[in-house]
Amino acid sequence: MQRHFLQELEELKSRLVRMGSLVERAVADALRGLFDRDVEAAHSVLRQEVEINAFEIEIDNGVVDLLALHQPVATDLRFILAGMKINNDLERLGDHAVNIAQSAISCAARPPIPIPPDISRMAEITREMMKSALDSFIHSTPALSRKVLALDDTIDEMNRRVASHLAGVIRSHPESVEQALDLMRVSRNLERIADLTTNIAEEVIFVAEAQVVKHQTDRK
Amino acid sequence: MQRHFLQELEELKSRLVRMGSLVERAVADALRGLFDRDVEAAHSVLRQEVEINAFEIEIDNGVVDLLALHQPVATDLRFILAGMKINNDLERLGDHAVNIAQSAISCAARPPIPIPPDISRMAEITREMMKSALDSFIHSTPALSRKVLALDDTIDEMNRRVASHLAGVIRSHPESVEQALDLMRVSRNLERIADLTTNIAEEVIFVAEAQVVKHQTDRK
Repeated sequence: MQRHFLQELEELKSRLVRMGSLVERAVADALRGLFDRDVEAAHSVLRQEVEINAFEIEIDNGVVDLLALHQPVATDLRFILAGMKINNDLERLGDHAVNIAQSAISCAARPPIPIPPDISRMAEITREMMKSALDSFIHSTPALSRKVLALDDTIDEMNRRVASHLAGVIRSHPESVEQALDLMRVSRNLERIADLTTNIAEEVIFVAEAQVVKHQTDRK
Repeated sequence: MQRHFLQELEELKSRLVRMGSLVERAVADALRGLFDRDVEAAHSVLRQEVEINAFEIEIDNGVVDLLALHQPVATDLRFILAGMKINNDLERLGDHAVNIAQSAISCAARPPIPIPPDISRMAEITREMMKSALDSFIHSTPALSRKVLALDDTIDEMNRRVASHLAGVIRSHPESVEQALDLMRVSRNLERIADLTTNIAEEVIFVAEAQVVKHQTDRK
């Protein structure tokens, strides 16, 4: 029985890792859709989301079964509940990938305007954050998650800069308002991806150190 | 022992109701900040969020204790896990109230532009949705939650209409870009509030009917 429980815990972990990979791919394809004006890549994200949503429910049901069958306590209980929250955060990350994909499709249908370099940097940093948060979860290395937390403010600042820059673009080129709004939306969704990734990192730290990191720093 | 468990379940329920009231008040004050250009009301939302965040953690800790001590199964387990998710959704609703409050503060510092009537309607409908979702949770009336689900598409459509209208305002009055962007942000946050309220309604239905409603309809 005990062995069985540990196997099921490992199974939950590996499912969450797979969920994380699905979401990472969706975000990457959405961004490729934007930067390369690759409408097919962007459209594929919409299909990927269906898979992500179905997998979220599968993992969630597994969690309920795991709790009901084995009635874990202490560290195991906290780990499993954190897994449930991480699963939910990953599904929401998938929603933001879809939003970016939709903006990419919309952008590709209009004359291009320059993409602010900050958006490329945000894309790189959020990708790094997602990778670190998931690695940190798999290998129980909270120090790596603390690095994720530290990057959240950088992304917030970049998002504000992008929004202010694009507001200026709109003021001087009102004919480009739709493209500028699409790029603002991409920036904002990257910022939300960083936020949700920060939530995941907080859960990892919480499980590892049994302490609540959430809300100790200002959030938006 | 059994009686004790039931009391704790009731306690969880009443805490979630209180959390819901806190969030409803924050959203209402944020909107008052916008419509009445009442900067003090908007600022109060930032203080309320601190309370909401602290209460989320308190409820979350209560859930962990409840699961660990009583190891519930079946319906009770599902109810408690749904409560944990609803708690999390309510906290995120509070974040959106803060975003609206920030836009209200920003708007009040500039010359006013007309607020699209759709935003007032969205405010009314989302308030009604929040009230229904919470009532439905308290009284275990899933039919009321189904009404909430039906309203989500209405809000999405209104948000699209507001965004498109305000893009036109920007094109013809580029000098009002900041105010128009602030109002878009309010509309978007109301749309997110409707989304999260829909999540809550889905959880209520899930507990009541032990069926997954999520992802059965298209979400964005």
